[in-house]
Amino acid sequence: MHVFKIWAPLAKAVAVQIDGKSILMDGPDDDGCWTAAVDSASYGADYGFVIDADNTTYPDPRSQRQPNGVHALSRLYNQNEFRWTDPAFQARPLASAVIYELHIGTFTSEGTLDAAAAKLEYLRTLGITHVELMPVAAFDGNHGWGYDGVSLYAVHEPYGGPDGLKRFVNAAHGLGLAVLLDVVYNHFGPSGNYTGKFGPYLTNAHKTPWGGAMNMEEAGSHQVRRFLLDNALMWLRDFHIDGLRIDAVHSFVDRSAIHFLEQLATEVETLGATLGRGLVLIAESDLNDPRVVTPRDCGGFGMDAQWSDDFHHALFTVLSRERLAGYYTDFGSIAQLAKAMEQTFVYDGIFSRHRNRIHGRTARNLSQHRFLGFIQNHDQVGNRALGDRISQSAGIDRAKIAAALVLLGPFIPMLFQGEEWASTSPFLYFADHLDPELARQVSEGRKREFFAFGWDPATIPDPENQASFERSKLKWEELPRPAHAAMLNWYRELIRLRRSTPSLNNGEPGNTVVTFNEEERWLCTARGSVVIACNLGSNSGPLPVINGGKLILASRPDIVGEDGTIALPPDSVAILRTDAIH
Amino acid sequence: MHVFKIWAPLAKAVAVQIDGKSILMDGPDDDGCWTAAVDSASYGADYGFVIDADNTTYPDPRSQRQPNGVHALSRLYNQNEFRWTDPAFQARPLASAVIYELHIGTFTSEGTLDAAAAKLEYLRTLGITHVELMPVAAFDGNHGWGYDGVSLYAVHEPYGGPDGLKRFVNAAHGLGLAVLLDVVYNHFGPSGNYTGKFGPYLTNAHKTPWGGAMNMEEAGSHQVRRFLLDNALMWLRDFHIDGLRIDAVHSFVDRSAIHFLEQLATEVETLGATLGRGLVLIAESDLNDPRVVTPRDCGGFGMDAQWSDDFHHALFTVLSRERLAGYYTDFGSIAQLAKAMEQTFVYDGIFSRHRNRIHGRTARNLSQHRFLGFIQNHDQVGNRALGDRISQSAGIDRAKIAAALVLLGPFIPMLFQGEEWASTSPFLYFADHLDPELARQVSEGRKREFFAFGWDPATIPDPENQASFERSKLKWEELPRPAHAAMLNWYRELIRLRRSTPSLNNGEPGNTVVTFNEEERWLCTARGSVVIACNLGSNSGPLPVINGGKLILASRPDIVGEDGTIALPPDSVAILRTDAIH
Repeated sequence: MHVFKIWAPLAKAVAVQIDGKSILMDGPDDDGCWTAAVDSASYGADYGFVIDADNTTYPDPRSQRQPNGVHALSRLYNQNEFRWTDPAFQARPLASAVIYELHIGTFTSEGTLDAAAAKLEYLRTLGITHVELMPVAAFDGNHGWGYDGVSLYAVHEPYGGPDGLKRFVNAAHGLGLAVLLDVVYNHFGPSGNYTGKFGPYLTNAHKTPWGGAMNMEEAGSHQVRRFLLDNALMWLRDFHIDGLRIDAVHSFVDRSAIHFLEQLATEVETLGATLGRGLVLIAESDLNDPRVVTPRDCGGFGMDAQWSDDFHHALFTVLSRERLAGYYTDFGSIAQLAKAMEQTFVYDGIFSRHRNRIHGRTARNLSQHRFLGFIQNHDQVGNRALGDRISQSAGIDRAKIAAALVLLGPFIPMLFQGEEWASTSPFLYFADHLDPELARQVSEGRKREFFAFGWDPATIPDPENQASFERSKLKWEELPRPAHAAMLNWYRELIRLRRSTPSLNNGEPGNTVVTFNEEERWLCTARGSVVIACNLGSNSGPLPVINGGKLILASRPDIVGEDGTIALPPDSVAILRTDAIH
Repeated sequence: MHVFKIWAPLAKAVAVQIDGKSILMDGPDDDGCWTAAVDSASYGADYGFVIDADNTTYPDPRSQRQPNGVHALSRLYNQNEFRWTDPAFQARPLASAVIYELHIGTFTSEGTLDAAAAKLEYLRTLGITHVELMPVAAFDGNHGWGYDGVSLYAVHEPYGGPDGLKRFVNAAHGLGLAVLLDVVYNHFGPSGNYTGKFGPYLTNAHKTPWGGAMNMEEAGSHQVRRFLLDNALMWLRDFHIDGLRIDAVHSFVDRSAIHFLEQLATEVETLGATLGRGLVLIAESDLNDPRVVTPRDCGGFGMDAQWSDDFHHALFTVLSRERLAGYYTDFGSIAQLAKAMEQTFVYDGIFSRHRNRIHGRTARNLSQHRFLGFIQNHDQVGNRALGDRISQSAGIDRAKIAAALVLLGPFIPMLFQGEEWASTSPFLYFADHLDPELARQVSEGRKREFFAFGWDPATIPDPENQASFERSKLKWEELPRPAHAAMLNWYRELIRLRRSTPSLNNGEPGNTVVTFNEEERWLCTARGSVVIACNLGSNSGPLPVINGGKLILASRPDIVGEDGTIALPPDSVAILRTDAIH
C-alpha cells in the first residue's frame, strides 16, 4: 500500500496512473493537495499523474527515481532499504576542511558513482576532507553538468540512481570523508520540467538567465519553498549528505521577511540537532553581501560559508597571461589580490566597471572561514571557451603559486577534480539535450557567447557533441608521469602543511597580513607564523627573510634560504616559518 | 551662466535647447554624463534636451520646475532665492508625533499649497504635530493623487510650484508644525516619463503593478539610485521638509548588499547632522519585515518608522459592518486586533489565506513607535469603491472607538484629512490623464477592479471625471454643525490626552496589554495607567472598573463610572485611569 500525495492547487481532477490503472485522487484539501491510497502499489512500481482533461501522464515532481529519464514514469523507491554502515560518522568542521569538487560523469571513465567511490581512498591520501559533488538531480539526457536538473528528488540514473549515491556516501564516510552536494534551487532546466502542470513553482514577475525564476514570495510560495526545503532535508537525512552547496542564490528574488535561505538554515539546524550530526550549508552568491553568511541571530541568512569569487578573480588575473575580458576586467592588480586575502571582498561597496554599478559591502569583520577559496572550479574552468586549466593557460609554475595561496590562504580551500596533478583534461561545457531544437539553441548560444568575446565560433567545442563530454573525463593514466606526479606531490605537501599548522587554520580577520609591490610583482602573505612569499614578476631578486623565517617549502628545488635572504626566481613561491627552530 | 549636466550614458550626442538655441553638450564622461556651460542661461529660462537624431526636446529628468506641465520644457529655478524665516525650527521627535495626512488638491476648495497653509493654524489647534503631504512631484494632468509622478524634482505646478511648497513649509514651521512629504521611488507614472530617453532608470527584469520597476541593482543603478537619493536630499535640504514617507518599498527589487533604503538612511542621517535638524524616514511596506525599521547597525534598513497596515485591517474589520473581501478576509477577529496592538504584526510568519503564502516575521521586540497607526489614510479610504469614510460605513459611534484606539494606542497616530470632523466628503480615486486612451484604460480598470468584487460597474465613480476630484474636496462648512463639531471635540480630547500622558507615549513592547472577549466583543487595552475599554457588541453590560480606574473620557455622555463598574452601551468606548486621584 502506498499513499500518493501531490500538490496541484489549480487542478479540477487528478489521477494517479500505476500498473496500467488510473485511480482518481481525493482533493484538493485546504493546502491544494490530492491524495490516493493505493493498496496494490509497491516499491518498484512505475507511476505518474494525469491532471484534468490533459491525457498525458506526468512524472511526480517529488519522484525519487526516474529509471527511464526525466520524461518517463516515476518509480516508487524505498528510501529506508539501504544498509548504512556509517552510524558513527561525523564530518570534520567546515573550518578545517579541504574540499574537492568533482563531477560524477567525468571524474572517472565510467562516469558513475560507484567508479568515483573507488577513487575515494586516493582523495583521502591526498588530504581531502570533504568531497563536493556537482548536482546529481535527474536532468534531460545522459550527460551534462547537472545544473539543468528537473527531477530534483531523483538521482540521475546514469550516475547509478539513488542507491548509487548511497553507496558513494557510505563509502566516503567509511574513509572519514564528508560529502557535500550541489543543489540548484533557483531554476529548473529547460527540458523535462513538468512542475508547471502541477502548481505555480515558477513566477512570471522575474526572470533568471536560465529561465523562469522560482516562486519564492508569491501566492503558493509556501508550497514551493516546502518542495525545496524537503528536498534539502531529504539529501541530508536519507542520503547522509553532510552539507549542501546552493547554486546561484543571487538569482533568488525573495523579499519575504524570512528569506528562503534563512528558513533553510533554520530547518537544517534542527535536522542536524535531531540527527546528532554537523550539517553545513554553502552558498554560491554573486552579491558580495556578508548577510548571506552572517548568523541568523545577527540578522543574517545563516549560511555556514559561501564561495569567494573575488579571491579567485584577483588571483587568476594576476597569474593569467591573457588579455582580461568580461568580469576579469574588474581585476588584475596585486593590490586587489592583497585586499581579497585580507578582507575577502574586493568589491565591498565600490564601483565595478564591469557591472557598471556599485557592488558589495565589506566583509572584513567576518571570519574568512565563512568563504571558500579556489583557483579552479567547474565554472572557472568550464566557462572558458576551451575549458582549459590554469596549469595550461598560465603554466605549471604559476599554477603552483595559485595552489600555495589557495591551500595556505585564509579561506577554506577547494580543489577541482584533476587540478592536483595538473590534469590535461579540459572541463568543457557539455549537454545532451534530447530535443534537437533545444540542442541547437545550446550549441549556437555557446558559440555566440564566445564570438562576443572575439573567438572564432568554429574553434568553440560544441557542447552537444558527445566528444565534449568524453574529452572532459579525467585521464588517470597521466598521474604517474613525472610532471604530474610532481604537481600532485606539491598539493600533498601544501595540504599536509595546512592541516598541521594552527596559524593556517585561523580564519579570523587580521590573521592574514599581505605586503606587496605592484611594480616588482612581489606578494608576501603572512598568516601568523607562516609566510607565503611569491614572485610573480620576471626578475629574480633576493627577498629578505622576514623575521628570520626558515624556508620550509618551495615550488622549485633551486630555492634555498641562506644568509637571511631567499632568492626567488620568476614565477615561484616559497613558504617560510618565523617560529621554526633553526 | 548655467552649467547643464545630464546623465545619458548610451547617447551618441546630446544638445541642450534653451531660448531657441541648441548647444551641443560635451560628453559622455566616465560617468556617462554630458555637460554644457551656457553663458546666456539665466533663472526663468525654459530648456530641454535633444538626444541623438531624435528631434524631440525632452524635459530634464531633474527639472525643478515644469510650469507648463510634465510634457513641456523645464524652467531654470533658483533654489536659493526663497527667504526662509524658520531658522530655529526643530521638528518634535517622531515618537511624540500626531500626524495628519492631506492631499493638497482636495484639502481646500482652492486645491493649492497656499490655501492649505491657511488651515495650518486649525491643525495646530487640533493638536497635530506633523503634516504629511501626499506626493507633490509633478504628474500628468491637473489633478490626481500624485502617485503617478514623473518629474520627481518639480513641485506640481497647479499646487503652486516650488515656491508654493516653500511658503507652506515655512508657514508650518512658523506654527511649530513639521512637514513630511510622500515620495514615490518605486515607479514612474504612465504618462510623461521621459527618463527612458536618457538612461536605464527602469529595468526589464522585474515588473511592478504600476509599470516598469526602478533599476535598483542592475547596470547603471548607481546613477538611478543617485537620482533618487539626490531627490530625497533636495526635499529635506532645499525645501526644509522634515521627513519623507517612501511609497511602497515592497516593490523595490534590490538585492544589493547595501539596500537602497539603507543607503538613503545613511545619507539622510549625514544631512541631518550637517544641517543640525532631526530628519525622519517613514516607509510604506507590505512586507511585515522588521528589517525595514531595524537600525542599520543591527542589520536593518534604518527607516525610522513604517505604516502599520495589520493594525488598520484588524481594527477596520472588527468595526466594519460589511462582508469582508480582498485583504480584509485575512482579518476580522478581536484576537487579531489584540495581537496587532500588543505585537504590531498579526501576520508574523504565519499563513495568510488571502496571500496564499506564509507572510511576515515577528516585530514584538521592536518599539511600537516604529509604526504608524491609523484608521483612515488615502489608500484605505480612496481604494474603496465609493471612497467613503469609516464614519459613514461603520457609523459615528464606531468611528469614535477607532479614533480612541488610534490616538491612545501604541503606534504613532496618523489621521487623514477631514477624519477629525467625520467629513462627509469621500476620497475618490481621481486622475486627469491628458491622453484619452490612457484615461479610458484608467476608467475601465477601476470598474473592472470593483466588478471583480461584485460591484455594478455603473455605480463606480469614473476617476477621470472631474466630478470625482471635486466631490473629494473637504467641505469645511460642515465643521460648525453639531455632529461634526462633537466629533472634532472628541479628536481634540483624545489628542490632548495622548500628548499629556506619559504612558500613552511609551512605545516599548509590553506597555500595551489587551484583554478581550471574542464572543461578547469586549476589548480592554491597558497602556500603563490608562485603560481604553471598548464595547463592540450589541449588549450593554457592566464592565468592572479595572484596578479601581477612574473614568476620564467617554464616547457618549451617558457613560458614567460608579460603584466600581462602568456600563458601556453597544459601540462605545470609555477611557479610565488607574493612577488617578478619585
